[in-house]
Amino acid sequence: MGTVMLGTEVAKAMKERLIQRAEAMKEKGVMPKLAILRVGARPDDLSYERGAKKRMELTGMASQVVELPEDVSQKKLEETLEALNRDTSVHGILVFRPLPGHLDEEPLKQMIDPVKDVDCMSPVNMAKVFAGDDSGYAPCTAEAVMEMLDHYGIDPEGKKVTVVGRSMVVGKPLAMLLLKRHATVTTCHTRTADLAGTCRQAQILVAAAGKAKMVTADMTGEGAVVLDVGINVDEEGNLCGDVDFEAVEPKASFISPVPRGVGSVTTSVLAGHVLRAAESISGVK
Amino acid sequence: MGTVMLGTEVAKAMKERLIQRAEAMKEKGVMPKLAILRVGARPDDLSYERGAKKRMELTGMASQVVELPEDVSQKKLEETLEALNRDTSVHGILVFRPLPGHLDEEPLKQMIDPVKDVDCMSPVNMAKVFAGDDSGYAPCTAEAVMEMLDHYGIDPEGKKVTVVGRSMVVGKPLAMLLLKRHATVTTCHTRTADLAGTCRQAQILVAAAGKAKMVTADMTGEGAVVLDVGINVDEEGNLCGDVDFEAVEPKASFISPVPRGVGSVTTSVLAGHVLRAAESISGVK
Repeated sequence: MGTVMLGTEVAKAMKERLIQRAEAMKEKGVMPKLAILRVGARPDDLSYERGAKKRMELTGMASQVVELPEDVSQKKLEETLEALNRDTSVHGILVFRPLPGHLDEEPLKQMIDPVKDVDCMSPVNMAKVFAGDDSGYAPCTAEAVMEMLDHYGIDPEGKKVTVVGRSMVVGKPLAMLLLKRHATVTTCHTRTADLAGTCRQAQILVAAAGKAKMVTADMTGEGAVVLDVGINVDEEGNLCGDVDFEAVEPKASFISPVPRGVGSVTTSVLAGHVLRAAESISGVK
Repeated sequence: MGTVMLGTEVAKAMKERLIQRAEAMKEKGVMPKLAILRVGARPDDLSYERGAKKRMELTGMASQVVELPEDVSQKKLEETLEALNRDTSVHGILVFRPLPGHLDEEPLKQMIDPVKDVDCMSPVNMAKVFAGDDSGYAPCTAEAVMEMLDHYGIDPEGKKVTVVGRSMVVGKPLAMLLLKRHATVTTCHTRTADLAGTCRQAQILVAAAGKAKMVTADMTGEGAVVLDVGINVDEEGNLCGDVDFEAVEPKASFISPVPRGVGSVTTSVLAGHVLRAAESISGVK
């Protein structure tokens, strides 16, 4: 029977530390603030936005939502981002993606101030994650996985880790974060020939493929640590991860559920990034 | 007995294609040119410089060496790079690294024009390699490994590939190039617990650890493709790779030697990048 790794517990522990750091900033006259730039009103974005705003509030920090209509022009969008770059009361900027089809994300990536880019949209931060330079910001979800491991005392050093998925939001940056912590990292994906075998060898298995319940018991090694980054809806309309939790849990030493798993830590990482941005921009710590 | 993968053969085949493309550019009035920026006179740099100049000449393109004294100031170095950025007759810039200890590489990385950055010094190109966007330039040695595979008809798709080494010059960018070609990539390093076992499972094994003859026969799977990126000097003062060639060759299906292996392809990749830069800068193709 695996220990269930609760993201909600990790977030609770992080909250205490974030409150203290935010308090120290406020005592020095700086109110850390996140600006969310949202185009349109996709339900996923609105749901994440509620979580992010609540997390900022719970940790004593500020947030602001800038909403643009779904048919906004590229020019107006770029001007809005530029204004947030310049706004000295804003320390972190989160731009919801993907953008509607008529808009081009590329110029925004180049434009966002890397110091305020708290979810790794800028190539400057991407290059830092790639290089193992932790002065930048990793994508929040990838870093949330590392927070889960740290909270439960699991050191990836020297371990065989398999990451299923190679997205720029989770799979690839997570592989880099794990490599920096000296794990031996294998990246799998849809074209991997022997996916089951490769997963079975992992001491730490991370599912970030975006496919409901794809990781089954026969893909899991005895005693593996299993982290589930997926957020899907199953046939019955219930939220589920990339891991078949009921089947895998008896074999795992540790396993994260969905919901209340990795996803519950993401906004805490985001809040931490805003705090770090505020410290760096204001020169106060 | 493994087929020996000769980098010299790969370079010969690439040369014909490069000559034709350079010819087409010259007919349109553009002479592709590489500028090499060298500080001091390290023997390694001088040796690579000779090879790069010869390769440019053999493919009908131009090169220019800008040499600065070993005690050059940061300011003078930055001004020199800035001048090469602005020089419209220069299409590619190679800065030899590491720089002498009193100089800071960081501002140069930020400063080099990404379009002229033919050996992936700029974070813009690093981020592109990370993202699998091939509009940038990968580090030449990492790409040389891909050229070797392609020339010998070895498709990495779906294959288990182990890369030993996690440098920003070879290991990490190569892992990204292989992922883009749909290999299942494992990155190993000095802290990997079971290095021999992990290497033995690989269908394609790339040694880029910088440690003489570290890959032995018991680390090689039967029929593996073995690529050696190392350039070391053995006890007797002879050039050798990271692979114990004599011991490994009987087990390998393909194996690259040192010298005359991957290292012989690097300057051809560099010349190809200069050509691509010239095409892109001049708008001629």
